[in-house]
Amino acid sequence: MQKYRLLAPGPVTVPERVLLAMARPMIHHRSPEFLPVLEEIRENLRRLFQTTQDVLILASSGTGAMEAAVSNLVSPGDQAVVVRGGKFGERWAELCTAYGAEPICIDVEWGQAVDPSAVRKALEQNPDAKALYVQASETSTGVYHPIRELAQVVREQGNRLIVVDAISGLGVHDMPMDEWGLDVVLSGSQKSFMLPPGLAFIALSERAQAAIQESQSPRYYFDLRKVLKAQAGNQTAYTPAVSLLFGLRESLAMVFEEGLENVFRRHATLSKATRAAMRALGLKLFAPDSPSYACTAVWVPDGIDGKALTKRLRDEYGITIAGGQNQMAGKIFCVAHLGYVDRFDVITAVAAIEMLLGEMGYPVKLGEGMRAASEILKDMPAKGA
Amino acid sequence: MQKYRLLAPGPVTVPERVLLAMARPMIHHRSPEFLPVLEEIRENLRRLFQTTQDVLILASSGTGAMEAAVSNLVSPGDQAVVVRGGKFGERWAELCTAYGAEPICIDVEWGQAVDPSAVRKALEQNPDAKALYVQASETSTGVYHPIRELAQVVREQGNRLIVVDAISGLGVHDMPMDEWGLDVVLSGSQKSFMLPPGLAFIALSERAQAAIQESQSPRYYFDLRKVLKAQAGNQTAYTPAVSLLFGLRESLAMVFEEGLENVFRRHATLSKATRAAMRALGLKLFAPDSPSYACTAVWVPDGIDGKALTKRLRDEYGITIAGGQNQMAGKIFCVAHLGYVDRFDVITAVAAIEMLLGEMGYPVKLGEGMRAASEILKDMPAKGA
Repeated sequence: MQKYRLLAPGPVTVPERVLLAMARPMIHHRSPEFLPVLEEIRENLRRLFQTTQDVLILASSGTGAMEAAVSNLVSPGDQAVVVRGGKFGERWAELCTAYGAEPICIDVEWGQAVDPSAVRKALEQNPDAKALYVQASETSTGVYHPIRELAQVVREQGNRLIVVDAISGLGVHDMPMDEWGLDVVLSGSQKSFMLPPGLAFIALSERAQAAIQESQSPRYYFDLRKVLKAQAGNQTAYTPAVSLLFGLRESLAMVFEEGLENVFRRHATLSKATRAAMRALGLKLFAPDSPSYACTAVWVPDGIDGKALTKRLRDEYGITIAGGQNQMAGKIFCVAHLGYVDRFDVITAVAAIEMLLGEMGYPVKLGEGMRAASEILKDMPAKGA
Repeated sequence: MQKYRLLAPGPVTVPERVLLAMARPMIHHRSPEFLPVLEEIRENLRRLFQTTQDVLILASSGTGAMEAAVSNLVSPGDQAVVVRGGKFGERWAELCTAYGAEPICIDVEWGQAVDPSAVRKALEQNPDAKALYVQASETSTGVYHPIRELAQVVREQGNRLIVVDAISGLGVHDMPMDEWGLDVVLSGSQKSFMLPPGLAFIALSERAQAAIQESQSPRYYFDLRKVLKAQAGNQTAYTPAVSLLFGLRESLAMVFEEGLENVFRRHATLSKATRAAMRALGLKLFAPDSPSYACTAVWVPDGIDGKALTKRLRDEYGITIAGGQNQMAGKIFCVAHLGYVDRFDVITAVAAIEMLLGEMGYPVKLGEGMRAASEILKDMPAKGA
């Protein structure tokens, strides 16, 4: 017997009560039964994003929300500054190019966070650039970019917008949208939302709401003017993904039962414990200076086949983590502690990595990783404590 | 006690075994467990669309697939002929306009099917028009447009494309894509697929596959070049809606257990019985000449408040049908027999309409509608027959 364990940075494990909520019989999205569902979701999304603005719900993957953040804000010929420090930073640049805009890319070494002064310089040198596009948590490298500092830099630069891809960062890092002055924050359901993929979310500041009226880019399904207007009437612009919304209501309820502060603290602690475990095993962290609390990226040690490592962990130990992407394929691995993950899931991941590394010939002291993790995890509050 | 019954033309009732399939624990979409799921789905989608081409799967509502059919085929300044005989015909025109193309609209009276000779004339008079955009079943009017004849007209006109919105028509009317020479056929999950909303489908003929390489319109999430390439390798371009795909595998299995011919025959018979029942009650059909087998649209009789009719049917009888849309609001009602619907669901709908119309003061002979429906429904094959 071997259980299936999902510890990749999305899709993530869906809690049992969310799975069951999604199995509820279908109702019509314009029926009175659906209205309180949508209303509760909208209220809890505002709390989760820490904004007074309506959080718009799209039936798409997170990439759909990224596209909406480009097509609704830039017009052909516009410039935008893009932080490109991973696969998803590259996606911002690709999206700008697809819409005929010019991305001014700040290339950041994979595994590093962007330096806010580099962003300031790029914005100063390109006074016409309309927006800064950045990831909060860059899923492909396990880096957290300093969103609060970047927001300050953008605010210094007049009426420009900061657009944050928080697909794997929201509900993980505390990023109060209104307080920090973030203009666009977007996310996707298969991350800290603890849902299957298929929903995306995007919230717009008042500045951003004004800007979407100006864009000349063609758009229809992702036209946020329509979505904003529909949701203001507690409706959806197009047929919503009803079963996923049933699940979302339940998973948002779970977040607020735990308490948002506790959710942030849990992710920080699981991240810290995972990093401590990896270091105790003599492994080198890929993003030591500014780690995302969603997932921990680790260098594959010399002499070990990184692709075999993730494959064997999956096939022989039942544990799905992520490998490196693009140029980092086979060179790093990435253990997620994102969403429905508790301390014993971290212990399990560390245990399996210890066992497998030993089997692959890496000189591991069995138990040293788990011990280091436990030193941190033992202080997490037990239930009811 | 009052049960909730969903007889609107989407979202539709989801069968119990599909609901349970969607409650299956999450797996990673790049894991070996997912590959056979996707492969089985792709194979059964080809059978359902009656094509040898790969049917592309999008995580979006049906409107997303409609947008893809525009942005991937027309460039700014292009012309396209649009059949505009309902709300969804209007959507084709809006989409063309959104992408800077010029829709040449054939305005068809709501409730009527388009005359193929009008399409021939429009194509002849506009030799640069690249494509014909049409609905198979126009959900807002309950009309089936003569897709086979329209395909012949388009084929006479050289290398132009016929694009069929079969959102509520696929799996209802027999429309063999390859045999009829349809270039683009698209659909959505919350119709005959018996699934929640959240998935869309689009299949492209070889001509259409060549055409999508040429379009100059900006696109990314709905860029069918990328989706086509990814699916050819049994992958998805972006994170797929995994739980809905679990459901899709199950609902496609149900379709082929019943047999595609039987599915078409069932929809035709349920449609015929519903029409007979409405006529027997002295009601006037809104689309008598070319009815969609997905839903039956009926004129609200004089002196009856149409909005109150659908609302009371929902609130007092537990039965959700659709009212008229846009200019037909309050003037027609629309009973669906789409997807997971059998003969006794039709009887139930007719019974409730009889009871309510009587209560609202319409001179109804109680039972006459049900009797007329039963005359047709009694000949449907019983299970195992």
